[in-house]
Amino acid sequence: MRIAVLGHGVIGRHVCATIDSSAEHELKWILERPELATEPKMTGDVSEIMNDPTVELVCDILPGTHPSYEYMKMALEAGKHVVTVNKAALCFGFRELTELAESRGLCLRYEAACGGTIPDIAETLKLAQTNEITAVYGIMNGTTNFIIDKMNREGAEFEPTLREAQRLGYAEADPTADLSGFDVKNKIIIISNTAYKCYCTNEFPMCGIEHLTKDILDDFAAEGKTVKLFGLSVRRGDRYAIGVAPVVLPMDALEAHVPANFNLFTLRADKAGEIKLYGQGAGGVPTADAVVRDITAIAEAPAHRGGAYFSRPMVYDPSLLTGTGYLGSREVYGTLEELCRQALAERAFLAFEPDEL
Amino acid sequence: MRIAVLGHGVIGRHVCATIDSSAEHELKWILERPELATEPKMTGDVSEIMNDPTVELVCDILPGTHPSYEYMKMALEAGKHVVTVNKAALCFGFRELTELAESRGLCLRYEAACGGTIPDIAETLKLAQTNEITAVYGIMNGTTNFIIDKMNREGAEFEPTLREAQRLGYAEADPTADLSGFDVKNKIIIISNTAYKCYCTNEFPMCGIEHLTKDILDDFAAEGKTVKLFGLSVRRGDRYAIGVAPVVLPMDALEAHVPANFNLFTLRADKAGEIKLYGQGAGGVPTADAVVRDITAIAEAPAHRGGAYFSRPMVYDPSLLTGTGYLGSREVYGTLEELCRQALAERAFLAFEPDEL
Repeated sequence: MRIAVLGHGVIGRHVCATIDSSAEHELKWILERPELATEPKMTGDVSEIMNDPTVELVCDILPGTHPSYEYMKMALEAGKHVVTVNKAALCFGFRELTELAESRGLCLRYEAACGGTIPDIAETLKLAQTNEITAVYGIMNGTTNFIIDKMNREGAEFEPTLREAQRLGYAEADPTADLSGFDVKNKIIIISNTAYKCYCTNEFPMCGIEHLTKDILDDFAAEGKTVKLFGLSVRRGDRYAIGVAPVVLPMDALEAHVPANFNLFTLRADKAGEIKLYGQGAGGVPTADAVVRDITAIAEAPAHRGGAYFSRPMVYDPSLLTGTGYLGSREVYGTLEELCRQALAERAFLAFEPDEL
Repeated sequence: MRIAVLGHGVIGRHVCATIDSSAEHELKWILERPELATEPKMTGDVSEIMNDPTVELVCDILPGTHPSYEYMKMALEAGKHVVTVNKAALCFGFRELTELAESRGLCLRYEAACGGTIPDIAETLKLAQTNEITAVYGIMNGTTNFIIDKMNREGAEFEPTLREAQRLGYAEADPTADLSGFDVKNKIIIISNTAYKCYCTNEFPMCGIEHLTKDILDDFAAEGKTVKLFGLSVRRGDRYAIGVAPVVLPMDALEAHVPANFNLFTLRADKAGEIKLYGQGAGGVPTADAVVRDITAIAEAPAHRGGAYFSRPMVYDPSLLTGTGYLGSREVYGTLEELCRQALAERAFLAFEPDEL
């Protein structure tokens, strides 16, 4: 397959090296800033790539929503398959991009955009072919899991743990997207769309872990429980609910023991039952491997889009996710949506214990 | 795809029902005992199926090694793809069946033969396309996990827990294959062959949990550890080691918290890192779903065998799996193979703590 790679950072370089060393694929173009374009196949002009009729597949490994979204759209309009790692751009343009891919008979794959190297998207596509998926939930952000795990293990406070995570490269200099739940929000939308074959809303409030303290974790630990930041969604018939919040877990739950920056996704399906997938949600080499697996899947069956049609009419119904919210010293019962709104208004830490998941 | 199903027990009936309700597939034949053959498409004569040139795919859902192995061979020789749930027959004829499939350009898939509905075989095939897999290990038997989990939770003894497992249908009337590790042996061979692209030996001693007692679990618990029956294999270059034994785990390991009859497979790969897959290793509906996913995979890409070529020359080197063996009150250091032989000779419970995995 003849491939163009947009972006030449850590992941992009690994992807390029793998394509270069493969017998089946050819690296035709790398989109790079003009001042860094040192090889003949590097170009700063994206139209050169899009206008090259020999390019069959475009890998989008750019950061940020724009121009990543526009480039993916251009690639699909030019009849090229697309693989993306870019959750923000994908989430922003999910409907347009998937409709475009479907109308042109092209593949749009995005394993690395949700859960890094973990094969959660491939498995969701595969399971959804023979199952009704009824819930997706789990630990979808390595930074926050690293912080909570370290606080739990070391009895440490939030602030120094965050600084340590930043020092070690597990948290960004501006950690807002991870701590607020924004990163998880993109992921739970992407995987829920894939699981339920619909376009889930992005208009729901989310809670992160900015207000987590050692005392909160200690209080839950005293009851044999802990808290992890979850993306979660459930579906019943043609209704679904979706959210992002710290979730209360018994200490014998698998999720309670996910270490460091690992992720754990759960898919619940009517026939296969509960499937859990664990692995590295980030990192250059593992993420690049997920991109290459997507390329391989497209090369093997370019006409097969894994049943990724998102046309099911579904209604957002927040009442499907109800439970107890621990807000400071209060316990409040309600939908996750109401509890998140309340916690955001009070600038309080929310721990959500769902009635059922 | 036109399909014949050999066997009409619980799993077979679910598979037949799914094929019957699908628009893409047609159920041509069901192999059933003549006295139970009540429908026109049921036959007791396997040659009727094998000689039908319109049958494209044969699902083997028979119990036991024979004649399952012979039927799979006949099907491949007749130019039909094969999907099997039968780990004993597959393990028995792995080399012959895979070589035959390869030489005829046919697919042989066996997701349900190793780990029930868990997509461990599909993921192993997929990962091995872009990674060197360097280890496979985990909880591969639901019966023994159910027993250990229940003994741990309830502080119960082995014998009454086994009887309870039998009463609930989690253990067979003759539980030998599960308790001795024989069931796990077949699975670790099948998944290791798939991961390392070779034919692993079956000539290694194994230890099960027949001699497990409440006291042993209590002693490990006092040190913050537990024990789970593992299949495990490691690979370094062109050498590998493989075994089956109860493995000592820290209580914060994910495996320590796998409940009831669930399984948890770990794949370690050079690029993707550590991937863990959790789910139901048995059960009619989940297992049937794995069969149908195999059928779907073949129907989508019948020319693509997922890189399942097993020609790599590999040498069995038991020294790659060394560690401490807890044998009664003694600690013995050695290879897993030596430790298993010793435990078997002494009819003692072995708990193996590997140096590294």
